[in-house]
Amino acid sequence: MKKYAVIVAGGSGLRMGSVLPKQFLLIHNKPVLWYTLHVFLKSYKDIHIILVLPESYYDTGRAICDEMDSFHPIQTITGGNTRFHSVQRGLSMVRDESVVFIHDAVRCLLTPSLIHLCFEETIRFGSAIPCVDSKDSVRILTEKGPQSVKRTDIKLVQTPQTFLSNILLPAYQTVYRDVFTDDASVVEASDHPVHLVEGEVNNIKITTPLDLAIAEELLDPPQTPV
Amino acid sequence: MKKYAVIVAGGSGLRMGSVLPKQFLLIHNKPVLWYTLHVFLKSYKDIHIILVLPESYYDTGRAICDEMDSFHPIQTITGGNTRFHSVQRGLSMVRDESVVFIHDAVRCLLTPSLIHLCFEETIRFGSAIPCVDSKDSVRILTEKGPQSVKRTDIKLVQTPQTFLSNILLPAYQTVYRDVFTDDASVVEASDHPVHLVEGEVNNIKITTPLDLAIAEELLDPPQTPV
Repeated sequence: MKKYAVIVAGGSGLRMGSVLPKQFLLIHNKPVLWYTLHVFLKSYKDIHIILVLPESYYDTGRAICDEMDSFHPIQTITGGNTRFHSVQRGLSMVRDESVVFIHDAVRCLLTPSLIHLCFEETIRFGSAIPCVDSKDSVRILTEKGPQSVKRTDIKLVQTPQTFLSNILLPAYQTVYRDVFTDDASVVEASDHPVHLVEGEVNNIKITTPLDLAIAEELLDPPQTPV
Repeated sequence: MKKYAVIVAGGSGLRMGSVLPKQFLLIHNKPVLWYTLHVFLKSYKDIHIILVLPESYYDTGRAICDEMDSFHPIQTITGGNTRFHSVQRGLSMVRDESVVFIHDAVRCLLTPSLIHLCFEETIRFGSAIPCVDSKDSVRILTEKGPQSVKRTDIKLVQTPQTFLSNILLPAYQTVYRDVFTDDASVVEASDHPVHLVEGEVNNIKITTPLDLAIAEELLDPPQTPV
């Protein structure tokens, strides 16, 4: 089965303000995005990567791709105004019946094991949504005020959210609604239930200086090729 | 107004298995618990601390208290089989009309600002429950399968959960139910709504080796008194 990874590296650069988008921040002198691409390339030799870049950082992102050593060249495309539209644009480049991973570029700490797990479960169940338990108690804001929820009933959802292309592509042929909080919710809206799998505690989004420090602690410096 | 902090340092030691409970792990040569106590003592000169310890580590905990420099000696008591019962035992030592902070010993990264905020909001509103937004999408497991929730409607709940004693103490005069996920839910069950305040992103529970590394990164080594 063919494999595509749509790596979502930010919609409009405008939302980020004037600071460098997180996916381009450096860890051991390489951008966060570099590590994310590297893990996917390492996972499967035959994976096709489609990288969705903000228009204003297209050249920056393209330059990172060009120095990656991959069997297939990494394809790049500019994103839309929301994550949904960025994914939609990325999916327009998926050509074949395949397993499609959709992944946040700022989650650079995932491992090849998680990617393999998502692939295998998708082959069996049609989708694989990695989730972890919440360490904190959780409340939901409702019209009646904040309500507490049993912690074990709450799952924090990560990426790569993974699907068979014949489920995912038709699901994304729809107009954007604000209930689409992630790819799983888009697929569910097309009447396909999704399958949850165990995510990785370290597979965090890099969004704060603390996260960047954690990533530096966990990632080995890249080795220079001989 | 008098101030009590009930610091919950683990119920039965049995649940932890044979490893050292997290609150006794070392950061810069001091136990996690030491940092937690230190922040509370630094926040208010007149705070009374009640530390709830697992029976099997009572002496370890007591020794940490005895070396703390505080105006009031730290009171200690052994915990119960669940967090609820441990808090109940701690509250049995609250003597006066007061503001009561209930705090997880393994959250050693909170700041005095958060403690001050919780105090002031409790004076105004009767309670203060620190919460932060979830960075991840969230799903709730229901009988119909996992349902997605709008991320902005989800709050991750931290401690110190803070209350006026005349609301908190009667609320805890009840029998344990498994819907009691935290102190706020116990108070709500007594028909008092709770008041949410903004928590701190760094105020994490120390539960994994990664968390311990983060705490080491964020905490300065304790200064030796001259």
